[in-house]
Amino acid sequence: MILDYSDTICALSTANGIGAIAVIRVSGKNTFPIVSAIFSKDISSKKTHTAHFGTIKEGNKIIDEVLVNVFINPQSFTGEDTVEIGCHGSVYVQQKILQLLLKNGARMAKAGEFSMRAFANGKFDLSQAEAISDLISSSNEASHKLAMQQMRGGFSKEIDDLREELINFASLIELELDFSEEDVEFADRTQLNELLTRIEGKLKSLTDSFSYGNAIKNGIPIAIIGRPNAGKSTLLNSILKEERAIVSEIAGTTRDTIEEKIIIEGIEFRFIDTAGLRETEDEIEKIGVKRALEQLEKSTIYIYLFDSNQMNMIELKQDLKELDDSVTRIIVANKTDLISEEKLQEYKDFGIEILFISAKETDSLENLKQKLVSEMEKQTISQNDIIVTNLRHFEALSQAHDAIIQVKNGLENNISGDFLAIDIRQSLHFLGEITGQVSTDELLGNIFGKFCIGK
Amino acid sequence: MILDYSDTICALSTANGIGAIAVIRVSGKNTFPIVSAIFSKDISSKKTHTAHFGTIKEGNKIIDEVLVNVFINPQSFTGEDTVEIGCHGSVYVQQKILQLLLKNGARMAKAGEFSMRAFANGKFDLSQAEAISDLISSSNEASHKLAMQQMRGGFSKEIDDLREELINFASLIELELDFSEEDVEFADRTQLNELLTRIEGKLKSLTDSFSYGNAIKNGIPIAIIGRPNAGKSTLLNSILKEERAIVSEIAGTTRDTIEEKIIIEGIEFRFIDTAGLRETEDEIEKIGVKRALEQLEKSTIYIYLFDSNQMNMIELKQDLKELDDSVTRIIVANKTDLISEEKLQEYKDFGIEILFISAKETDSLENLKQKLVSEMEKQTISQNDIIVTNLRHFEALSQAHDAIIQVKNGLENNISGDFLAIDIRQSLHFLGEITGQVSTDELLGNIFGKFCIGK
Repeated sequence: MILDYSDTICALSTANGIGAIAVIRVSGKNTFPIVSAIFSKDISSKKTHTAHFGTIKEGNKIIDEVLVNVFINPQSFTGEDTVEIGCHGSVYVQQKILQLLLKNGARMAKAGEFSMRAFANGKFDLSQAEAISDLISSSNEASHKLAMQQMRGGFSKEIDDLREELINFASLIELELDFSEEDVEFADRTQLNELLTRIEGKLKSLTDSFSYGNAIKNGIPIAIIGRPNAGKSTLLNSILKEERAIVSEIAGTTRDTIEEKIIIEGIEFRFIDTAGLRETEDEIEKIGVKRALEQLEKSTIYIYLFDSNQMNMIELKQDLKELDDSVTRIIVANKTDLISEEKLQEYKDFGIEILFISAKETDSLENLKQKLVSEMEKQTISQNDIIVTNLRHFEALSQAHDAIIQVKNGLENNISGDFLAIDIRQSLHFLGEITGQVSTDELLGNIFGKFCIGK
Repeated sequence: MILDYSDTICALSTANGIGAIAVIRVSGKNTFPIVSAIFSKDISSKKTHTAHFGTIKEGNKIIDEVLVNVFINPQSFTGEDTVEIGCHGSVYVQQKILQLLLKNGARMAKAGEFSMRAFANGKFDLSQAEAISDLISSSNEASHKLAMQQMRGGFSKEIDDLREELINFASLIELELDFSEEDVEFADRTQLNELLTRIEGKLKSLTDSFSYGNAIKNGIPIAIIGRPNAGKSTLLNSILKEERAIVSEIAGTTRDTIEEKIIIEGIEFRFIDTAGLRETEDEIEKIGVKRALEQLEKSTIYIYLFDSNQMNMIELKQDLKELDDSVTRIIVANKTDLISEEKLQEYKDFGIEILFISAKETDSLENLKQKLVSEMEKQTISQNDIIVTNLRHFEALSQAHDAIIQVKNGLENNISGDFLAIDIRQSLHFLGEITGQVSTDELLGNIFGKFCIGK
């Protein structure tokens, strides 16, 4: 993507298709003359943030009656002169108005180009720009909250402040190099070490938050694990029946796992049905069991489901012992509609929290859903903490973290100032990439190219 | 639909789905307090036609950063206090903001309710309101032009003026009834007759324009007729290949006709492929032939297609004689890539305009498409004439026309003033229905109920 901010761009900014109204956005130096050329009023002399009713014309032919919103730079989303044309939502009208804008000197905006201009004009930093994209695609409350937090500033400020401090040290150390013959030390090594420790701690907590943030953004993976015929598929179907399924039965990463996304109380869960666990000599089945256990490892929480009528306490104890307990697990007894009083009591005396359900009856699933939500709330770092949701940020943060460790090690080993300065510059580079203070055209193209058109 | 204008309504006005931005419209008495309750600024004291950037909040939680457009009554689309909230285009954000509006006292707008309020507040008459709906659903230049013409006033003014004159006469005749014992004539019968003739002529030309208007709106029906293996389906496919097909091969009204819509130079044509015509004893085939001829009768233009290598002049003459020539027809010789020079000359000497094509080669179809467009332009009543496109208008106009004829007949037969008055009132009723001066809740519900939500 070539970054060119000199021309005037336009695009449909509302969703594709027919609506009552649609909004076409125009931004750039020649916005006002271009729009004035096709609009019944000259908007060049209008005040910013005002709306004007009139007609869009092609020669004498009226194309539409529209409402034109005027935003004078820098008081606009992009920071440039901007106009939003609210027209009737017919596809013909939308296309016709865009054609007229092109004819009068605008060009079609590329994906994310409005946001890229806003970034270039300092309206927000890179991580905030990325949050806009996340905000638009967020489909549930939890992911929306994270995107909004990031858009409102998120960890950018904190990273920038730490980076600023580190830049000071880098300058001092580089200054020392100019006086290398005199063996002076402008940069206080103890203070530098303290700063590095603070930065390292911050980067660690941010990178640690990623697995949670990523789960919230893409759906929290919940594996359903258990012996054959425990009722795993029935459970999945029952939860689906009650809640709105986002994706209908898609094939999982492996042929024998099924994934379904469901939103419960604003949190998106990604349920993964797995093959039944049992000792087997069948090679194909062995692969299924292996994959089920892999799913367990990858999940945030797993549900261990068993048939309450078939299971005995020794087997149950053994299963629980064999399964990973480093991942949060919920133990669920199924088919309790058929269970005897004595058996039920046996489970209750077992000494471990067991949820009782009957997967066929959706009412009985309420406990389980509440448990899932409360487990997630427990894992939620407190509301004010910053959570990283973006893979690019995670990678830049991780690289910055590694670079900081390297500086620290260098410091401990008393390496010379010139090598220290190189390591610090490396850290500064990775830190700067997060908020966009260090950026390349390629990086920007990658980020904004994933945006939708019109944003 | 119960007409209630006392409460405040809201709806998503842009197309459904994810876009860069979406617009939510709020209209009614409490618009400003309701929006102020969830917006970071109090908009009650803002000027009309101004835009305000701020946040939508639920308690302390920020839902979105939005742009709020303020329109103070009567300077708005509906004529009421109105706000348009431009938010980020995520489905979650759209839903959340609507929920907050509902929580604060708005209710969801029914389909067409914004337009209905605009009508109720005298922003436009009924036929203009209907034009908005047509405008939104228009997919090509010709139908868009007709809708825009109607929205800009169309024949409303003319009808209203004629109705006004007729009301005067009605009053005079009713006045005569009060003085019936004195045998006076306030209403000049000659003038009344003149007026009736003028109205009748106007109504006639409007109702006559409907078949053209309706064709423009729904696609101009073009039947392709010819003997078996003339290449009718190949022709249809070739035209489709070159032009953008709107609907992919849908089953027609009958099992054996195929319809496709295609836009050529801004005009939408609806091509109808028919069964091959031939004398047959096969009962099923007979039905096919019968249906083909029915399609011919219903079409605006038909294409008579024949295989230029197989046809001889006697058969051609006979076919043309048998086929209806009251419908505009275009005679097309197919497969001319294989034709001999002599044969070609024979056709050229035939004395009737024949287009030569090779349906397999899309290039050769240019003539035919130009011919179709120019035939339609010939049929187009001059640009300034009003064209009726709406079935409801057509029916009201037809009924008004019949009622006017009845008044004229009464006048000729010297019926008494009281009967004459009744007939005139009847005409006034139908004329009033067109522009909405006479309307019932049921009529309004019918019209606006067909609108999209948010309009």
